[in-house]
Amino acid sequence: MAPDPTDLLEIALAEARTGLDEGGIPIGAALFTADGTLLGRGHNRRVQDDDPSMHAETAAFRAAGRQRDYRSTVMVTTLSPCWYCSGLVRQFGIGAVVIGEARTFSGGHDWLAEHGVTITLLDDERCAALMTDFIAARPELWYEDIGGVPA
Amino acid sequence: MAPDPTDLLEIALAEARTGLDEGGIPIGAALFTADGTLLGRGHNRRVQDDDPSMHAETAAFRAAGRQRDYRSTVMVTTLSPCWYCSGLVRQFGIGAVVIGEARTFSGGHDWLAEHGVTITLLDDERCAALMTDFIAARPELWYEDIGGVPA
Repeated sequence: MAPDPTDLLEIALAEARTGLDEGGIPIGAALFTADGTLLGRGHNRRVQDDDPSMHAETAAFRAAGRQRDYRSTVMVTTLSPCWYCSGLVRQFGIGAVVIGEARTFSGGHDWLAEHGVTITLLDDERCAALMTDFIAARPELWYEDIGGVPA
Repeated sequence: MAPDPTDLLEIALAEARTGLDEGGIPIGAALFTADGTLLGRGHNRRVQDDDPSMHAETAAFRAAGRQRDYRSTVMVTTLSPCWYCSGLVRQFGIGAVVIGEARTFSGGHDWLAEHGVTITLLDDERCAALMTDFIAARPELWYEDIGGVPA
C-alpha cells in the first residue's frame, strides 16, 4: 500500500531539526521506495561539513547509495527543491517528490511536474516555521546556500 | 586577461584521466575565477567512493569550498553537464561553462544558455574519445551514472 506522504515527511522534518541542532541550515530530506521503505535520509551540511554540495536532497540521495533505477522512488523534502536538487530528481528519474512547504522558497517543482514527476505539496506549518525563523535569524547563511546575492 | 578555455580544459581532462586510472567514470571538472585562478577540481567518484552524488562538477564545486558569489566563476567540464550538474550551475549562478564535448552525452547546456549562462563548447577529440571508449567498455556503469535504464 502506498504510504501517507505526511508520514514520510516526519523523517525529513526530523532531519531538518537535527540540522538546526547542529548549527546548520534546517532542511531535511529522505528517499523512499514506493512502499515507504527508507533508502536514505540526510540534511543540509553546508555549515557542519563546510560542504556547499550537500543540500538535504543530495545528502539523502548519497545516503541511499548506488541504485540502478529511481523511477519508483519518492524524494521527500521539507522545502521546495532548488534547481540543483530539482536537476538531481530529473536526471536520475526519481518518480515522485513530496514537499513540506514552498512558502519560504520555491525552486523547480513546477518544472519537475512538467517533466512527469508526481509532486505533492503539503504546505506543512512546522516546515514553514522552521525556515521562516531561520531566514530571519541567519539571512546571510540562507542566501549563501541558494547562491543568492542580496542587493 | 581572460584565460583560454582550452587551457582550462586541460585541468578537467587531467581529472578525467585520474578518474579512469582509479577505475572510475572518466569525467573531470574544475571551477575557476574569471581570471583563471583555480578554485577547485575533481572527478566523478561513483565507483571510488560508492557515491552517486559526486559527479565531476559537484566534486569540483565541493572542492572549491563555500563561496559567496559564483557569478564571475567558470565551470569547466570534460562532458556536457547532466541535469543534476546543470541545476547546480543555475542555482548558484555560475556565470560560464566550458564543455569538452557533447557528442557522447548532451545534458542541460542549452537550457543554461537560455538562462544567461555563457556556454563554450570545445568539441575536444580527446574528451570524446575518453567517453566513447568508456561507454563501449562499461555501458552498465555509464547508464547507472546518468540514471538511464537501458531497455
